[in-house]
Amino acid sequence: MSKVIVAAFGVSMDGFAAGPDQSLENPLGVRGTELMGWFFPTKTFNDMHGDGGGTTGVDNEFAARSFVNIGAWIMGRNMFGPIRGPWPDESWKGWWGPNPPYHVPTFVLTHHARPPLEMEGGTRFIFVTDGIQSALRQAKEAAGKKDVRIGGGTSTVRQYLQAGLIDEMHLVLSPVLMGKGENLFAGLDLHVMGFKCVERAASEKATHVVLKKTGGA
Amino acid sequence: MSKVIVAAFGVSMDGFAAGPDQSLENPLGVRGTELMGWFFPTKTFNDMHGDGGGTTGVDNEFAARSFVNIGAWIMGRNMFGPIRGPWPDESWKGWWGPNPPYHVPTFVLTHHARPPLEMEGGTRFIFVTDGIQSALRQAKEAAGKKDVRIGGGTSTVRQYLQAGLIDEMHLVLSPVLMGKGENLFAGLDLHVMGFKCVERAASEKATHVVLKKTGGA
Repeated sequence: MSKVIVAAFGVSMDGFAAGPDQSLENPLGVRGTELMGWFFPTKTFNDMHGDGGGTTGVDNEFAARSFVNIGAWIMGRNMFGPIRGPWPDESWKGWWGPNPPYHVPTFVLTHHARPPLEMEGGTRFIFVTDGIQSALRQAKEAAGKKDVRIGGGTSTVRQYLQAGLIDEMHLVLSPVLMGKGENLFAGLDLHVMGFKCVERAASEKATHVVLKKTGGA
Repeated sequence: MSKVIVAAFGVSMDGFAAGPDQSLENPLGVRGTELMGWFFPTKTFNDMHGDGGGTTGVDNEFAARSFVNIGAWIMGRNMFGPIRGPWPDESWKGWWGPNPPYHVPTFVLTHHARPPLEMEGGTRFIFVTDGIQSALRQAKEAAGKKDVRIGGGTSTVRQYLQAGLIDEMHLVLSPVLMGKGENLFAGLDLHVMGFKCVERAASEKATHVVLKKTGGA
């Protein structure tokens, strides 16, 4: 059955899933890339970016899994780009160049309408202005029997969690102290929401956990 | 040189170091024992409680280390017992029976004076009513060249962190979602305080991290 998932989502020891002050230079916020230190060396990441090579251990297995059976993505506007407010023009096409790593319909939450954007490799960015429920409805329809992956950022994941709409989360806990930024857990009681750790594996760099909603505490 | 340390301190994925609603039945709060699931099977724990046996892997190595070179302990009143307000009498002598696992002077922070308590095995509970700085001064004097270990609970550790008085913390991250309770990290910027992860090791049950203050971000 089609699920709504979060995957390969990096979190610091103190609960932050992004650093502060996102900008063109720091798409994940200041020091946010430290949360993805487990991901960049993997074969999966290197294949995506055409460099070849890369590691093949636990980190790569989870990285590869995070792209399997995904029929649609949803992301917040900040994950799509650093621009705030109305779109000045249509020149910003995401952080990822002409061929983004999604290859399926990708729904971008925004308050500002914009026509869909066809990219190379099958990625189609669709801009949704009527809220997270609408984006999920459209994403599920596009995904068919496949899963919908909520890409991020933190605020988007939190909104879907609060609405009770996420079935499964693969988090990657890195030994990093962020101190400030966007906290994934603050004010959310994932235990009461029914999430439990159903899988855990540690690599040299990070600890992978899979949390599944099992139907209430 | 003598250090002020926190060690073998269990933390949930969502940052809680104890569950809510501490009581006689739940010294670590409701579900708080889940944070110590890595510790109870170890040889170190079983030796302490006279049962013999126990595991000897990564978890046990860190458990054993946490008791090495400790010259004095400091703990908050809630770690010492479930009683609040003035002491009704002197019958409560801690959770640990006649021979507590400390074996050195152990300073208990409280607002209510009480004479020191000599226990078997060298543990002496000294009740400190004039604040965390005074307790640390006394503990350092008692410890000499050895370290002072801040035992807990969470609120006591946070007070010493906020005052900039902790040099090193060994945290043990368990794949547990607590949801509520006492959050170790909330509102504290350990990165700006200068803490960095200097050691990390994962077992089947948990991930151990050693954070050291390295002199500012």
